[in-house]
Amino acid sequence: MKQPTQEAAPISASKRETVPPAVIRRLPRYHRYLGEMLRRGKLRTSSSELSQCMGVTSSQIRQDLNYFGGFGQQGYGYNVKFLHDSIADLLGMEEGFSVVVIGAGNLGRALVHSHMFEHRGITRLAMFDVDPRLIGTEINGIPVYDARTLGTFCRENGVDIGVLTTPKDEAPLVAETLAKAGVSGIWNFSNMEITLPEYDIAIENMHMGDSLMALCYGLKTKKLLQKEKK
Amino acid sequence: MKQPTQEAAPISASKRETVPPAVIRRLPRYHRYLGEMLRRGKLRTSSSELSQCMGVTSSQIRQDLNYFGGFGQQGYGYNVKFLHDSIADLLGMEEGFSVVVIGAGNLGRALVHSHMFEHRGITRLAMFDVDPRLIGTEINGIPVYDARTLGTFCRENGVDIGVLTTPKDEAPLVAETLAKAGVSGIWNFSNMEITLPEYDIAIENMHMGDSLMALCYGLKTKKLLQKEKK
Repeated sequence: MKQPTQEAAPISASKRETVPPAVIRRLPRYHRYLGEMLRRGKLRTSSSELSQCMGVTSSQIRQDLNYFGGFGQQGYGYNVKFLHDSIADLLGMEEGFSVVVIGAGNLGRALVHSHMFEHRGITRLAMFDVDPRLIGTEINGIPVYDARTLGTFCRENGVDIGVLTTPKDEAPLVAETLAKAGVSGIWNFSNMEITLPEYDIAIENMHMGDSLMALCYGLKTKKLLQKEKK
Repeated sequence: MKQPTQEAAPISASKRETVPPAVIRRLPRYHRYLGEMLRRGKLRTSSSELSQCMGVTSSQIRQDLNYFGGFGQQGYGYNVKFLHDSIADLLGMEEGFSVVVIGAGNLGRALVHSHMFEHRGITRLAMFDVDPRLIGTEINGIPVYDARTLGTFCRENGVDIGVLTTPKDEAPLVAETLAKAGVSGIWNFSNMEITLPEYDIAIENMHMGDSLMALCYGLKTKKLLQKEKK
């Protein structure tokens, strides 16, 4: 069967806003699995195949993708590359977003060294810190600037995303500086829940510990099961 | 009104296993918010109050907690400390789990320097790396051992959790070493989806990038809205 050619029907911003957060949070996973299939040279897939490797029901997958127009073709399934690229587009990977990392400690360094940003089409512009020993240096080719110049830098360069890896106490002030400078989103690693209702800024609080706790729940269950068996 | 005294009714392992993953994933958030309340000296709360600060409906909160016996008292609501401690117990924070971190790079260091583990009652035993310059050193008081001794160390010390921060390529082999050594859970930061169906080991794949992508989805929506307005 000839591979059907498809064109992405872009969905409107107001329609994007109505998509439930849980669906949005599954999109990056779909994108990862489809990328895996692409690397293996797979051209075509189905919701039931995706369902098997992802542990999500196939009706869930169809329902999720239907929010964005479906992407599938009756009797053919999904074209892997088309679906992969369409999801990348939905997730803004073609937008050329730019990022600054605030805090040049271990976590900030880990993020700047990872391929986290470039794999998602995001440009790393700079890091910011308060430590005079770090200011003026480069980390993995990214310059470290004085934290006091953060606001000016973001305004002048139209920075899209600020990644917050500072200690908890400094986080609220840095977040406000970013918001005032017109940054559109904060990726917050500070373990301080940040809300800035008076600004038009998106905040994604990254609580790594929550994932650790979900693991520990499972471990405790396992321990109890072993005890019960005895 | 006198604060009612309550005793946690421990739920069985088989009952714990039936709790939907989405509910388990909300428990750490409840725990964080309740901890915040405790620090502010709050003694008592209600599902509607929790609902307001967490952005979850109050019926959702009651439904979630009902899986574990409810914790609330008719006409009183929730005793903050009791609920906080009960959730900590459900999450295994009183179990005294132990952890080793594999990979002493930036991410491994960041994790070992954070209060991530100690705040959850988890003991950091050791780090492992292949770099001879790191082996034999200490990072934040935690010894760095030769990665080749990982299996033996885990077996001898009954390690509960292995934190995988190695490069992608090394991850599957390290994961198998952990599983063979009887480790109960893997917290996987390697960006390589790991499954070990032949072993009885829990795996929590930590995809930080998924959270970044959810943020970018919101940013793209915002951009489109601004364009539409023009």
